[in-house]
This record gives sequence, structure tokens and C-alpha cells, in this order.
Amino acid sequence: MGSLTAQVREGHALPRGFYTEHDVYNADIRDYWNASWIWVGHISQLPEPGDFITFDYGPESVIIARDRDGNLSAFQNVCRHRGSRVCIESAGNARVFSCPYHAWTYELTGKLRRAREMPEGFDPAAHGLLPVHLREFHGMIFVCAANTPPDLDAGLAKLDPLVAPFGLADLTIAHTARYPVPANWKLALENYMECYHCAPAHLDFARSHSIKDPHDLNADLIADLAARSRAIGLPVEEVVQYCAGSASLFFKRYPLFEGYQTGSRTGAPLAPPLGTLTGHDGGATDMQIGLLNNFLIYADHVVGYRFVPTGVQETRIEVVWMVRAGAEAGRDYDMGDLTWLWHVTSMDDERIIRHNQEGVNSHHFHPGPLSEMEWGIRAFYDDYLGRVSP
Amino acid sequence: MGSLTAQVREGHALPRGFYTEHDVYNADIRDYWNASWIWVGHISQLPEPGDFITFDYGPESVIIARDRDGNLSAFQNVCRHRGSRVCIESAGNARVFSCPYHAWTYELTGKLRRAREMPEGFDPAAHGLLPVHLREFHGMIFVCAANTPPDLDAGLAKLDPLVAPFGLADLTIAHTARYPVPANWKLALENYMECYHCAPAHLDFARSHSIKDPHDLNADLIADLAARSRAIGLPVEEVVQYCAGSASLFFKRYPLFEGYQTGSRTGAPLAPPLGTLTGHDGGATDMQIGLLNNFLIYADHVVGYRFVPTGVQETRIEVVWMVRAGAEAGRDYDMGDLTWLWHVTSMDDERIIRHNQEGVNSHHFHPGPLSEMEWGIRAFYDDYLGRVSP
Amino acid sequence: MGSLTAQVREGHALPRGFYTEHDVYNADIRDYWNASWIWVGHISQLPEPGDFITFDYGPESVIIARDRDGNLSAFQNVCRHRGSRVCIESAGNARVFSCPYHAWTYELTGKLRRAREMPEGFDPAAHGLLPVHLREFHGMIFVCAANTPPDLDAGLAKLDPLVAPFGLADLTIAHTARYPVPANWKLALENYMECYHCAPAHLDFARSHSIKDPHDLNADLIADLAARSRAIGLPVEEVVQYCAGSASLFFKRYPLFEGYQTGSRTGAPLAPPLGTLTGHDGGATDMQIGLLNNFLIYADHVVGYRFVPTGVQETRIEVVWMVRAGAEAGRDYDMGDLTWLWHVTSMDDERIIRHNQEGVNSHHFHPGPLSEMEWGIRAFYDDYLGRVSP
Repeated sequence: MGSLTAQVREGHALPRGFYTEHDVYNADIRDYWNASWIWVGHISQLPEPGDFITFDYGPESVIIARDRDGNLSAFQNVCRHRGSRVCIESAGNARVFSCPYHAWTYELTGKLRRAREMPEGFDPAAHGLLPVHLREFHGMIFVCAANTPPDLDAGLAKLDPLVAPFGLADLTIAHTARYPVPANWKLALENYMECYHCAPAHLDFARSHSIKDPHDLNADLIADLAARSRAIGLPVEEVVQYCAGSASLFFKRYPLFEGYQTGSRTGAPLAPPLGTLTGHDGGATDMQIGLLNNFLIYADHVVGYRFVPTGVQETRIEVVWMVRAGAEAGRDYDMGDLTWLWHVTSMDDERIIRHNQEGVNSHHFHPGPLSEMEWGIRAFYDDYLGRVSP
Repeated sequence: MGSLTAQVREGHALPRGFYTEHDVYNADIRDYWNASWIWVGHISQLPEPGDFITFDYGPESVIIARDRDGNLSAFQNVCRHRGSRVCIESAGNARVFSCPYHAWTYELTGKLRRAREMPEGFDPAAHGLLPVHLREFHGMIFVCAANTPPDLDAGLAKLDPLVAPFGLADLTIAHTARYPVPANWKLALENYMECYHCAPAHLDFARSHSIKDPHDLNADLIADLAARSRAIGLPVEEVVQYCAGSASLFFKRYPLFEGYQTGSRTGAPLAPPLGTLTGHDGGATDMQIGLLNNFLIYADHVVGYRFVPTGVQETRIEVVWMVRAGAEAGRDYDMGDLTWLWHVTSMDDERIIRHNQEGVNSHHFHPGPLSEMEWGIRAFYDDYLGRVSP
Repeated sequence: MGSLTAQVREGHALPRGFYTEHDVYNADIRDYWNASWIWVGHISQLPEPGDFITFDYGPESVIIARDRDGNLSAFQNVCRHRGSRVCIESAGNARVFSCPYHAWTYELTGKLRRAREMPEGFDPAAHGLLPVHLREFHGMIFVCAANTPPDLDAGLAKLDPLVAPFGLADLTIAHTARYPVPANWKLALENYMECYHCAPAHLDFARSHSIKDPHDLNADLIADLAARSRAIGLPVEEVVQYCAGSASLFFKRYPLFEGYQTGSRTGAPLAPPLGTLTGHDGGATDMQIGLLNNFLIYADHVVGYRFVPTGVQETRIEVVWMVRAGAEAGRDYDMGDLTWLWHVTSMDDERIIRHNQEGVNSHHFHPGPLSEMEWGIRAFYDDYLGRVSP
């Protein structure tokens, strides 16, 4: 990987090997994913003591559980004995986690409660499930498997007042979709980090959302949106902070095109307004927390995006649609309407990311120069190259 | 692999790389499987001159054939010309083995009989199919592809009198089942070598078979079994000899639970008594010949187990049920009843071995301490680590 | 690969690693395929300006297009921006090639016409699609991705008068078939380069075509064919020139067995005579241009063969049947009759090549001596080993 890094050219795409080699993929999981904060779910998925979810990426699996005291904690889904997955289900309610292999039994906090027939000197206290760091931010759950995770709290504190009116803790998951794509996760993430491709590749998206670079948006349109946002109770402020070490933040609200109150096919509202909002402002907020966790916040729904590695050239694009808690499909929103935009857009993305990987696999791929609109990719490369090493 | 070996901790599971790396898998085939005695079948499969079977493991394939003089021999199923498989069928009767590619033709002993159009100086005698060592033990056929195989004969001589009453040469194969599992072969074998998992994972098995460690079995129960065994004509003796170099032996008879005369669902006999036995004693013998070849011998049937590597994380669990020669399904035994116990147990095993591999794939897998009941795994590690090298 | 090369024995098959290792496969694409002339199609596939085809091998993809001036050119199907495949269809007509990702737009000559939002200093002239060398020879299209391709023109000049009477520029493709085989491309190519296997493996072929080595053909039969060939307007001459550097040539006409006027099931003609031929001579010409491009020329049809790598042990055998332009299936020829011989022969080949790979995968494969009839394989090894290096 040293020689790969030496081939990197500032302002250009990464060389082929970053997207084709097993050793790079292993390093990606070990040095980048296992050391980053990852958005894994929402508190509405585990309201009661004993509720749990698991989240898998690459060869990794993490259990997130609510204990008897109502606290959330996270730990590796790997038995401390001979390594079996402890929890096989992706969600449920448990009294304890009992490994299906040899019945080593762990508390909801990960602590080892019981292991039969162990030799003298065995210390149960040293054999709990390995802890994973966890943060809850307005109901969104983030985990990080590093011993010393990058600082997240300072960033969350900045975002806190901006996010508050959306009432994100008070959401429910309406739908989750998965779009497997035969491509390296970095190509999938890069695709999300630039809208240079939106005009040619996303015709439906481009009907309601500006495909211009944010720097080039018309000042009047921005001012109009700001007025409308304030009118429904939204503070108008942005945070753009790209930095190495996974502490990057992005929070910015954009105007949709005239006639669009939210990210819908017709422009009409899709669901009841979120949080304390009193109506629709025709805007959409791009929120990134770290570089792996992406959210689109409309006045009436939130869409979360993840690009989960499952192999060198296999990625699971996960899209999660969330609406105000209590809203019911068929009564308060229509599921087809709600999911239309980012479903068709994800289908487009699957196709273009796949073709990107096919071309990158060529020995004749020479990484080309990035456009002005691909600054998000530069930020990702800076962070990535600073953290992943052979 | 040197660095992997350095990570091994006495009394603990092996590190992740042993179960995930291609280089280790190649070394496993080359240094362990190709240098071990492997049970490949029973003489009842090739009674007549010209009868043959093939046995495949990893990228290897061996032909076992009975020649015109009635002798069995084994050779590599790899043409000495440009390497084609010579024998495509898994069993049959042949006059000669003629390679389907260029018709190089070999005798039933592997000797090259004919190769057309070869250049001057070509020596047919130097181009027979490569010989593989073969031993027959009470009808069970073992092969070893090493130039100098580990000594097997001394062990077989020890087992000879113990095995004799079962009349193993006089068996017929009732059924063979294959359970492919997406896991490294070592995880499958390790699973077989300990009954620490039997209580939590094998509920059906645990109804009839003790799940205790053999050392902890009640002395009275053992004495009772010994009396019953003698009464039906079985000598009561055990052989436990774990040692490096593939010469390990294990032979021990255990009592089933009260009411169980054999390994059946109801406890009732399944088939006519084997060999010279005069009835059922309610016992089961665990027999291992080397570490790869495992047999369960009840009074009325034998179950053979193999864990055949087919890829880094692909293993074919093969289970072979054998009954007294001449016994007929539907008349002397019921096929569903006969195969029930080890079919359901193998289904359990497939599941737990698969989950074990999933967890072991995690970068967060830290090999944990073995329990008191996992001494069989320690024996396997000793043998394995002494023989497989980079 | 250095150590692999050291294992090569003159006059013997290549060692196992050449057919099993990923590094070798990568080198094969990089050093051999990307530096060889490859037959990719026929001018009848792109008669009009804007017509294009793509040809894929390994991870590579090449676009061949006819521009507004009627000239053919070829270029890499890899966008010069972030590497997407530019052309997704395998054939069609285009005004320009617009990358589906970010709409970088290229002329039919590969020149970059437009790239939006690029930073100052961006030079469009330096970012055209990478050119690929192209030669047209009697309508057959060859490409080579090397910077400096091996000389092809001298060889084509030699073949020119011999090929002329067949009117190869005036063909139409009747049918294309693909036979994927789970084997390394070299085993597929080697299989084509010798007829030592024809007798045992190709019973249908052997009814009409001699399976002897060309050196051993009966002189009278050859003289008879020469007379018949001259009578229908074919010059009788051969070119056999094996040399390193991809400039090898082979062109030789053989007599079919008595009663066979062409490569048909019954011996009867299959289609109208080609070019200026006045009838059928009962012969077949083997033509190789370089070592990768193989043609069988009967008096009434041409069969083209390619063995396209798609993975370490995945090859796509492509067979293309061509007849005189204007000939129509159902009227001038019967499609089933036309394709019968080389369809059944390819099915045989798929099977024997697959079994060859299975045997070669064995650690016990020792490359054996080549027969007298396998001189074509020696020629291939000489060329291959001289060009592929670690």
C-alpha cells in the first residue's frame, strides 16, 4: 500500500489498487471503518430494556442493546471463547445474550455472566464482550469500535441547536431499503459526496433539487429560503468543517425548486412536519456527521444513507426513511410517495457506481482530475489517506 | 504464516488468519491433508476387479481401484501428460483408465500402458499415475498422498482386537449425506472434537448421549455398560493416544442414557447387530484413527464422519451410515430412523460452525481460552501446528 | 513469478502456478493481452458513421467506432475523469460518447469535446479517451492496447495474396456463440493449438477432419487437394512462422476426408462459395494471426475463435460463424447445419478444458512431456514466457 499511496496525485481520483486489492480492503475495515463513528440506528428501534439490534459491516458485527437501567451500550458480536457470533438475529428482545455455540452467557451490558467448565484461573471479568463506544444524538445512535475514538462530542455540540427543531429523537422508521452494488465502498461514498453527476445521472432528482454547486446558488433564492425557514421555526445557520480524523461535519440547508415543499414527486408535502416545525419551507438540509453518515432532512421526513462495505467490490447501500413518530402509513403518509425520490435516485446510483467500478478495474484507468464540484471527494481523500496505512 | 504462528497462545483458540487466509489454506492441503491418512471408503464399494471410486478433497482427487489380481491400489487422479483429471466418475468399473483428453491409458494399477506420438526417449515406466499409499483395516480404506506417510500400522495393530467383534469388513453403506458449510475445515473438525457444545447446541443428541466430559462419567454407569458389553461379546478396553504426526488414536465406549439401546430416536434397536455381537449393549464407541477420521460404532450400525476442505471457507461435512452387510432398507432397518440422529445433529453443526466462522472473520476476534472439555482441540492444535508451516 | 519461471522445463507443460495464481493472471492481462493484437470483429458490424462495437477481455474494454469520415478507430472504454465505463452497450450508433456518470463527452475519434466545471488549467486535448491501435485486414478488425504494438503489417502483407480469393471483407456474421469454461485462458488456448486430443475427444470432428499431425498427412491427398483448390481459384501456398513478439503466423490448407466438401455433418456444402471461389474443394484452412486469433476457412464459411480471459479460472470461448455477405439464413444456408460441427466440438472442448483445469489445480500435478503433435503449444510457451514477467 506504500507504493499505492505514492501514486496518489493531489486533485485527482485515487489509483486503481485502492478499489481492487484485498489488502487495501482489509486495511479499510481495520483502519478506517473500525476507527470511525458509524450511524447504526435510531432509538425508536429499541425502546424497552432488553431490546437490541445488530449492525454488520465487512466482517464485523456490533450488538447495540438497552439494559435493565434503560441505558444503551454496544459491544462486539464475537464470543470471547472461540469467536462465534453471539447474537444471530438482527433485532429482538433478550434477557441475556447466550452464545449459541457453548452457551457462554453475557449480560445486556456485555459482561460475562457464566462460562461452564473453564480451567482454574479463568477470570470472567476479563472476558466480557468487547465494548464498542456509543453516542446518542437526538435519537440517532452512533458507534465506534476504536479503542480511542475520534472526538465526536465537540461536533455534536455545534450541531445541537441547529438540529433541535427537527425533533429527530421523536422519529419512527417508515422504511429501510438495501441496494447491493458490485463496487468498492469508496466509489459508492464518493458518488454521494458530489453532485457533479446529478445533472446527467439523476433526472428525477434534478426536477426538484438544484444540481449546482452550493457555492453557485442564487443568493436571492437562498435568502428567500432563509425567510421561509425562519417562518416555520428553523434557525438558519450552517456548519461546514472538513478535517481529518473523522470529525468532519456538514450541515447546510438548500432551497428546492419553486413549487416543491419537500422531496416529493409532485412538490406536495409527504408527511406531518417534524419536531416543532409549523409547516414546510421548501428546503432540504444535507447533514454529514463524520464522512460515513449522511442525512437529508426535509421539513417532513429524514432520509439516512450508509454505504456499507461487504467485500472488496461489494457494497450495500442502505437507505432509511424516517417520519415523525406516531405517523402511520396510509393515514399520515403514503409509503410509495415517501420513498419515491430516493428510491429512483438510488437505483440510478447503483448503475453508475457499478459502471465506475468496471472502468476502474481496467489496467488502463489513469485517475483523472477532479472537477470544481467534487470538493467533497477531496475532503474524503484527505481524511482517508491520513488514516489508512499498510 | 510465521507471524501467525507467533500469535498462537497455549490453551487458546487459533488466531483469525488460520481460518481466513489463502496461504494457510494452501499449506493446510499441502502439509496436513496431503500428509495425513484419510478414510475414503469401504471395500463393499469395490468388490470386483476393475471397480473403482474416487475421493476428492481441496484441489486433490485420488483414484482407488481393485486390479485384476483383486488388490486395491490408489493413485493421483492427475494425468502425467498435461494434468487432466483421468477419471471423471466418482465410482464405476473400468478395464483401464483412459484420460479423456489425449487418451493416455493407464492400467488399474496406475501403470502407463500407452501414450501416442511421444518423442524419442520418452519412458512410459516413469509416467504412471503417481501412487498414493493405501491401507485396508477391517474393510475401511485409508489413503495417504505423502511420499513417506506417518506410521499407521502400529496403531491399527492396537485397535485390531477391539474392533474385531464389530465385523467392520462385513458392512454395507446404507446412506451418505453431505452438509456443505461456509467455514474453514478446521472449525468443522474442532466442532467434532469437543462435546462442550453438545448441551446448548444438540438437544436431540443430548436426550440419548451423555454430554459430560468422559472423565466425569459416573463410574457405576461405566461398570454397568462394561458388563452389558461383555455379555454381547465385546471386549472392554480403550485406547487414547494423542500424539503429533497423525498417529493419534482414540477408541472408547460410552453408555447411552437408560432406555437407549442404540443411537435412535426412541432408544429401540435400528438394525441387526454387527459382527459377532449377540445383542445390544446400550453403548457407543468413539473411534478416531488419526485426527481426520471419525467413527461412531453402535451395536447395530456405524457412522463415519469426514470434514473435507473444499475452499478457504468451504467445507463438505460427509456422513456415512453403515449397517451389517445383507441388511436391506425397509426390511431390516428403516432409513429414516437409522439416519435421524446424526442428520439432525449435522444440521445443528452446520449452523453453529457457520456462525463460528462469521465471528472469527471479525478483526475483533481475540482467541479465547479453551474449556476443560476441549482437550480434543488442544490435541488437534498440537498436531496441526507441528506439521503445517509456511 | 520469477520462481514459477524457474520451474519451467523445456518440452513440458507449464507448472501449476501459471494456471492458479492471481498475480500471474494480472500479468497475463497486463503483459500479454494488453500487448497483443486481438481480433475483435468484422467491418460488417459497423458499416455507417457513428456505428460502434465494444470488446471486453479480463477487466478491459475497448470501443471501436467509425467516425464521420468513415474511418475506424479504437480507444479504451474508460473515462479520463474518474474511470467509469463510457460506453455501456456492446454495439450501436452514436453521435458522440457521453459518459453516463458526469457527462464528459467524447468525439467518435475519442477526442474530448466537453467536460463541465473543470478547474483552470485543465487541458481537454490531454484528456481524450486513450487510443488503441487498430488494423483492418480484409474486413477483420484487430486492436492492440500497447503503446508500441508488435509488428503486424509484415505478416499481413505475406498473408494478403493467400487470403484474397476468400473475399473476407465481404462477409456477414451468421452467428456468435459463447462457451464459458471454468479454466484459465491458457488451457483453452493450448487446447486449440494441438490436435493430439482430436481423436479421443472430438468424435464428430474426426469424421470429416484428419486428426493426424500435418507433417504426417498423405502426400497424395495433399496433392489432390492442391489440384482441387487451384480449380476453384485458390492459390496453394502456406505460411508457418512461429516467433516471439506476437508476430506468429500460420496459414495452411488441409484436405477433409473423402466425401466432405466443407465442415458439415453430411459433407454437403453449407453456403454459397466465398469471394471469387467457383466451387468447393473439400479443404479447410487453418489461419492464425498472432497466437490469439484463430480462423478456420472453408470454401463456403469462416469460423473465428477467441479464448477470452474473464478471471483466473474463467474463460469465455467465443465462436463466430461468418458467411458470404448477402447470404440469408433459411434461404442460402441453414443455421443449424452451419453451426453444427464447431458447436459440438466446442461443447467437447469446454468439458476437456474444465477437467484439465481440475487436474492442474492439484498439488500433485507435475507438468508432463509434450507429444510430437503439440508443437503449437511449444510455440505458444516460447512467446508467452518471453513476454510475461512478474
